[in-house]
Amino acid sequence: MYKLYYAPGTCALASHIALEEAGADYSATRLDFKANQQQSPDYLKINIKGRVPSLVTDKGVITETPAILAYIAQVFPKAKLAPLEDPFAFAQMQSFNNYLCATVHVAHAHKGRGYRWATQESSFADMKGIVPKSMAACFDLIEKGMLKGPWVMGEQYTVADAYLYTIELWLEGDGVDLKTLPRVAEHMKRMAERPAVKKVMGDQQAKAA
Amino acid sequence: MYKLYYAPGTCALASHIALEEAGADYSATRLDFKANQQQSPDYLKINIKGRVPSLVTDKGVITETPAILAYIAQVFPKAKLAPLEDPFAFAQMQSFNNYLCATVHVAHAHKGRGYRWATQESSFADMKGIVPKSMAACFDLIEKGMLKGPWVMGEQYTVADAYLYTIELWLEGDGVDLKTLPRVAEHMKRMAERPAVKKVMGDQQAKAA
Repeated sequence: MYKLYYAPGTCALASHIALEEAGADYSATRLDFKANQQQSPDYLKINIKGRVPSLVTDKGVITETPAILAYIAQVFPKAKLAPLEDPFAFAQMQSFNNYLCATVHVAHAHKGRGYRWATQESSFADMKGIVPKSMAACFDLIEKGMLKGPWVMGEQYTVADAYLYTIELWLEGDGVDLKTLPRVAEHMKRMAERPAVKKVMGDQQAKAA
Repeated sequence: MYKLYYAPGTCALASHIALEEAGADYSATRLDFKANQQQSPDYLKINIKGRVPSLVTDKGVITETPAILAYIAQVFPKAKLAPLEDPFAFAQMQSFNNYLCATVHVAHAHKGRGYRWATQESSFADMKGIVPKSMAACFDLIEKGMLKGPWVMGEQYTVADAYLYTIELWLEGDGVDLKTLPRVAEHMKRMAERPAVKKVMGDQQAKAA
């Protein structure tokens, strides 16, 4: 039995989808970011970084999306959520996930979390203003080749697709016109049709209500 | 035969050390960042992102440090550079590497690469000013428990140690007082004594001369 801590609209969605795709026995616990629950003493005992996602396993807690995604793929090999038998292909998948976490997610975070990297209101406004351009530049690389199609890695659906979909959902709010990204838009549509994705989105919406 | 593209002072050092520790047959090619060689048409064919490191393998190119590090550990299992037989321990190692790439490296990058996330000189100065504090906060978590000791993962030396060492070398320039981080300082010292680290540092200095 796994326990995932998440908040709606965050990158924790990727791990949530991966657990569902894997057929894992899990529960998902929603944290209230408006009440700053991720910084509560109880949660900091689970994740000292005060962020989501956190995946509680019977051996301990795993944090950071790419690490959780690779773990789920490895412990549920029958679900075929990663090219586990081919180190080069596995590295390509991890490279994609690392690009999402260290470049794309970071670009997005400058919209609303500028206080992590600056102190002045003028800096926050400047950072926020560049997000449509920086996110468009990130997704231009994805559109032009990093997304092989129909899935990130080509024919095989992997956990990288769950992660990409999670960030695709931020594009409209970040001011990126999806019409300029037809292959990304197709990927989003394809993902939204997957039963596991429908199930997770429904569950998160029900808990948010 | 592997080929690593690096620049001195960058996070590519981690992959360079890992190749050396693995006993891999490799060459290391230095890019001149002052001449913007990482953005040259030839290099962009290797890595569309125009960054280092890039690891050229006989199957293709791998980018992003955590992906390269896990790959090297997987293809050189005898070097025991990762807990490959234990998915939970492997995930812990990957989580540490992801924290370095998506949080710690990003905090550091706001010192000199603010143009990635803002446009105004005042924002760049603001971002630069916060780096000693944000890097100290990142390393406070590492000091207080993420670094198990003597190595990141405890008794087993892994690729995460090469990555941590790479970023430890930035601390002085980032205005972080190593006296406040005795366990981190010990780790740095322990790393500097490893033959593979001495070899790589010597090679990079020889090529820079």
